[in-house]
Amino acid sequence: MAATVVCSSGNVEVVCESVPVTSAKKAPVCVLGTGLIGGSLLRAAVAAGYDAWGYNRSPVGARAARADGFDVTEDLPAALRRAAENDALIVVAVPMPAVDHMLSAIADYAPECALTDVVSVKGPVAAAVREHGLAARYVGGHPMAGTSESGWAATDPALFRDAVWAVGVDQGTRADPWTRVVRLALDCGSVVVPVAAAEHDRAVARISHLPHVLAEALAAAGAIGGDLALGLAAGSFRDGTRVAGTAPDLVRAICEPNSAALLEVLDETLTVLSAARDSLRDKQSLADLVEAGHDARQRYESARRWEITGIRPGDHEWLEDLRTAGERGGVITRLD
Amino acid sequence: MAATVVCSSGNVEVVCESVPVTSAKKAPVCVLGTGLIGGSLLRAAVAAGYDAWGYNRSPVGARAARADGFDVTEDLPAALRRAAENDALIVVAVPMPAVDHMLSAIADYAPECALTDVVSVKGPVAAAVREHGLAARYVGGHPMAGTSESGWAATDPALFRDAVWAVGVDQGTRADPWTRVVRLALDCGSVVVPVAAAEHDRAVARISHLPHVLAEALAAAGAIGGDLALGLAAGSFRDGTRVAGTAPDLVRAICEPNSAALLEVLDETLTVLSAARDSLRDKQSLADLVEAGHDARQRYESARRWEITGIRPGDHEWLEDLRTAGERGGVITRLD
Repeated sequence: MAATVVCSSGNVEVVCESVPVTSAKKAPVCVLGTGLIGGSLLRAAVAAGYDAWGYNRSPVGARAARADGFDVTEDLPAALRRAAENDALIVVAVPMPAVDHMLSAIADYAPECALTDVVSVKGPVAAAVREHGLAARYVGGHPMAGTSESGWAATDPALFRDAVWAVGVDQGTRADPWTRVVRLALDCGSVVVPVAAAEHDRAVARISHLPHVLAEALAAAGAIGGDLALGLAAGSFRDGTRVAGTAPDLVRAICEPNSAALLEVLDETLTVLSAARDSLRDKQSLADLVEAGHDARQRYESARRWEITGIRPGDHEWLEDLRTAGERGGVITRLD
Repeated sequence: MAATVVCSSGNVEVVCESVPVTSAKKAPVCVLGTGLIGGSLLRAAVAAGYDAWGYNRSPVGARAARADGFDVTEDLPAALRRAAENDALIVVAVPMPAVDHMLSAIADYAPECALTDVVSVKGPVAAAVREHGLAARYVGGHPMAGTSESGWAATDPALFRDAVWAVGVDQGTRADPWTRVVRLALDCGSVVVPVAAAEHDRAVARISHLPHVLAEALAAAGAIGGDLALGLAAGSFRDGTRVAGTAPDLVRAICEPNSAALLEVLDETLTVLSAARDSLRDKQSLADLVEAGHDARQRYESARRWEITGIRPGDHEWLEDLRTAGERGGVITRLD
């Protein structure tokens, strides 16, 4: 099979000319953790025709999912034995601090299953997967979607529609589990960006973790201004602080495991902001910062995705080729 | 007349019990500058039944306004003579760098008119007004509304609906022009926060100018990550950088005149971010920042406005009383 491509803009239109699609069998899916992301994935997979079930640690969350008609258990070994029996793709959908416990259970009950995850960092997950001897059938994943809500009540089968789903193309990745993960992402309505773990983690430090850090700092600065400042706050403050509404534990679980990459971009940003401060103080000017920021936002708004075509999983240098294409803004929109 | 009050939440519901409203005469309005804010104000005032006209420096903008049926001229002296003849309220709606030129013309052609402005800082405008000998009938104003667009094409008569409009209550403010400005703000659909110039400028540094600075820095950091990072960007980056789409000249005209207050809060934020960086580096923890930010955002989301009642413009200590009420989150929703 070969990944083909589409020219797609920001998050809008997809103009498509492509070879006929071979709709291969949808392998069963076992989702570990049915919070916002895992629960939405379970819903989306079922809606797309997958045989899918889940595990959730909290009985309250599991009951809520069952009440909505989904097959979610609090019995982790049972969920994993079923995965092993059905050759399911296992999706680890818990925050980073709980990943190790999941991997340990997978190693015990379903070590031969294809394995992916939807955790917000990839390097630390890959390292944990290696420690548990599960690397052979592992492919990292990260759907770039979410809200400031959490838990089953916030789940939405359309959460991944028109979203970008990062899928790992690290050295040693095998074609079969990779194809399964990509197919699931596509069937949930996303496009796939192929990316190696380290590059992923550096990129999300910039476009996901730094936004959280700055939103928290902005919210705090506003509140120091008291009722008057918060009462005068309008769109720029509201939008700039939106993600500060996310549960603190979740923000920490997202950002802290990526500390190396986040520290690098945080240092860089402190340098940029300090230079802006000096320029404002000495020359009453924010010109450099404002022009760089405006150019950057324009570049973001006008970015056009292009479809990766003709790279066949398993072919010579397919991983390197996909990695290069992903770095250049290419996306996979179908498997042929 | 007395300002009365309503218990109003965030930007939603207004539960109102109040004495009968005296709908006093709507005095004519002359708007200088028909860009996003001034043009929207002209539209809103006309929609509310005011006799209103405008001046715009750019013939293109003036023609666009006339094509939409609004009375906008490129002849500043003519617009101001008409204001003087009709005892109009003059609204200065140009960016800070152009304010001095407007005030100079007002001093020449309409020095007796009631005068307000919609500029994003209040201290520097008040100082310029004093220099031109126009302080006696001046009352500062600042509607907390806008988009990242600019120019007549972006104008919207509903821009101020359910917005907050800061109106000056500095020492020496006279009751008559103050009442005119408040009435116009209310008739445009806003609620009024009474605030002294210096407090306004400190507050907007936190909730308007800092958001711009951080959005620019975030956008720049994202773009450094190239096509891959921008391609992976989702809601947190999109919302956190939205205002970086604003025209650079406009952002600078908004932020730079408030440099003293902005420098203070920028230094404070650099300290907060540096501490977060150190904590992440030394303890792998963002706990302090994330908890402070989350608490702050919760406070913002749950803030409840309350209606200021029983303060009569011109009464003993009315300005001090309104200032205190505004600092405590009070708003004016009607003039009785």
